[in-house]
Amino acid sequence: METTIGTDPVIKVAALCGSLRKASYNRGLIRYAIELTKESVKGIQIDYIDISPLPMLNTDLEGPAGSFPPVVEAFRQRIREADSFIFASPEYNYSITAPLKNAIDWASRSPNCWADKAAAVVSAGGSFGGGRSQYHLRQIGVFLDLHFINKPELYVNAFAPPTKFDSDGNLIDPASKERLKQVLLSLYAFTLRLKEKC
Amino acid sequence: METTIGTDPVIKVAALCGSLRKASYNRGLIRYAIELTKESVKGIQIDYIDISPLPMLNTDLEGPAGSFPPVVEAFRQRIREADSFIFASPEYNYSITAPLKNAIDWASRSPNCWADKAAAVVSAGGSFGGGRSQYHLRQIGVFLDLHFINKPELYVNAFAPPTKFDSDGNLIDPASKERLKQVLLSLYAFTLRLKEKC
Amino acid sequence: METTIGTDPVIKVAALCGSLRKASYNRGLIRYAIELTKESVKGIQIDYIDISPLPMLNTDLEGPAGSFPPVVEAFRQRIREADSFIFASPEYNYSITAPLKNAIDWASRSPNCWADKAAAVVSAGGSFGGGRSQYHLRQIGVFLDLHFINKPELYVNAFAPPTKFDSDGNLIDPASKERLKQVLLSLYAFTLRLKEKC
Amino acid sequence: METTIGTDPVIKVAALCGSLRKASYNRGLIRYAIELTKESVKGIQIDYIDISPLPMLNTDLEGPAGSFPPVVEAFRQRIREADSFIFASPEYNYSITAPLKNAIDWASRSPNCWADKAAAVVSAGGSFGGGRSQYHLRQIGVFLDLHFINKPELYVNAFAPPTKFDSDGNLIDPASKERLKQVLLSLYAFTLRLKEKC
Repeated sequence: METTIGTDPVIKVAALCGSLRKASYNRGLIRYAIELTKESVKGIQIDYIDISPLPMLNTDLEGPAGSFPPVVEAFRQRIREADSFIFASPEYNYSITAPLKNAIDWASRSPNCWADKAAAVVSAGGSFGGGRSQYHLRQIGVFLDLHFINKPELYVNAFAPPTKFDSDGNLIDPASKERLKQVLLSLYAFTLRLKEKC
Repeated sequence: METTIGTDPVIKVAALCGSLRKASYNRGLIRYAIELTKESVKGIQIDYIDISPLPMLNTDLEGPAGSFPPVVEAFRQRIREADSFIFASPEYNYSITAPLKNAIDWASRSPNCWADKAAAVVSAGGSFGGGRSQYHLRQIGVFLDLHFINKPELYVNAFAPPTKFDSDGNLIDPASKERLKQVLLSLYAFTLRLKEKC
Repeated sequence: METTIGTDPVIKVAALCGSLRKASYNRGLIRYAIELTKESVKGIQIDYIDISPLPMLNTDLEGPAGSFPPVVEAFRQRIREADSFIFASPEYNYSITAPLKNAIDWASRSPNCWADKAAAVVSAGGSFGGGRSQYHLRQIGVFLDLHFINKPELYVNAFAPPTKFDSDGNLIDPASKERLKQVLLSLYAFTLRLKEKC
Repeated sequence: METTIGTDPVIKVAALCGSLRKASYNRGLIRYAIELTKESVKGIQIDYIDISPLPMLNTDLEGPAGSFPPVVEAFRQRIREADSFIFASPEYNYSITAPLKNAIDWASRSPNCWADKAAAVVSAGGSFGGGRSQYHLRQIGVFLDLHFINKPELYVNAFAPPTKFDSDGNLIDPASKERLKQVLLSLYAFTLRLKEKC
């Protein structure tokens, strides 16, 4: 059942997924987060940004006076418009993925579009459920000037029982669903706290 | 010349130094920070906490019902009383020092005394000026639930010209002094921003 | 049943445990490793080094001409005598423990006793089973000039089923036991490989 | 003057640069390394691999039976043929670049082409000269099963005096040149040591 929060401020959260493959579990996390914002979690509007069209970063592609290729400029604009961010960051070889790093780096080019906003990171995968990528991303966030929430952390071990995702990559595990909801609520509260809106 | 801020709220910042040696450059950073709070930086009261009396952490030393040795309990109390923290964190072998980790771990024992407060880290040393210890400390902060300021970062290369410290370990380099002042101002602002709780 | 390797060279492995508490699971890992070297794994002699007597590192405690307190000097001597190392490294607050860092730092004081030797790290704990401490330790190893084996890695989630340790902290889980055996065999092979010096 | 080593074994070192921009300082480090192998450092043949043609990793691009797009397969073949690796790894936002991570990830797809080989990492940039990217790369190497040399480390602060690179990105600083030579010699020795060829 829906909880009506009434007059709560609405924040805009940009969501990025580090995997490009279709059935990505990590994108499944974002899909469920979006579902939550339409049901039980009020006050969050998620803007899912597909990072696959971005060219590989090469600063030689930047034009005079700091102009960017149109697809990059459009991406940067959506980052600028967000109040905060949620990253679904799979772990490839004990770090974050290239597509995600590429997107981050494009939006960091001066003037940095990430600066001074709140962020959360979640992940799914084997072993630590993507955990190692999260700590690398947090270090990247220091330079970007992102303020990551500390708690709760969510790493979904996609290969340990119980089953966490269906064959289309949709999150179906109740415990992980509840945890993801808590991540959103924590990000919501921290975003407002930093905006001194409350 | 002194800037009078008048009615600004005063925050209490606990300061810890990771080195036990007498002429520590890192303690020199804290000494100068204290000096600043008595001169040009208003609104901060620094409580320097000597961590050398703490026993090496061994949870077998904890009493029934979560009681601690008196020296540990006194330390935890001062951490609890602080609004935020500044760590002077030397780098030993590419990470933080044992005395600092020990102090951190004691105050993290349940109930965690660090939770949900702002923090800053500065360092002095050779090479990266202690930088590698700062990123390890930031990862530790995720579990402690500390909110580190991102900018400015201060790592003083103590062995590259110009001379940064005198023979007593006092900071004498004007650029580093100014940077340390900016760290304090940033910590002050972030502490207040986080305290406006929803 | 025992495997006789016959003329295989015998290497000396110093084992350190980062926890001081009596019933430490991590010390349980070392106990089982020792057991293995007396049974199925030949060619390894483990020297378990108790790090609890070491004073907290303070370079002011060093004498003229680089002399150390006797307990430190005795510790350093045993590190020097080892061919390689195994660390049982619990994770406290997302990093290594203070007692382990302290021991490492003492033996790193010039002349560095760790240099150019092979090492392995194992851990037990909640969540990632101590994994976050392992990556911090590996970074520390860069400066120490340790060569860590990469595979297999062993992190025992002590709180997830099946039961991994008995109430005395002895390892009882067959899968973890087998994995620990593979760690020892990998360390043995890597130690010999590195000793064939040019 | 050339040092004739005569009968020394020759190793093949694949060199990758994490920056795609034309005047990259990091590619300048590789150019100078190649120059060294033709002059004073014998026994190393460097295969510089341009990573810019690689598509962004998406495992949906893999064919049945683990086949890869031709450009990826050609890249993987050159990685397989190398005895060891040198990475010139610029630091973007406190971590490695997307193009380098992308190349690494492609060659790690099963069967992993990096496994059990020696590696070195060097970098140039502002601040720590790219140092933060080096520690992330070393953690990535744990899963790849790379054995990084520990010493010497080379991070060239490209923006601090003296001038390190000319306007074409060529290394001109004598101290950095000498250090890079020592890196190559260390990589050479470690590669042979691991190959038990000496």
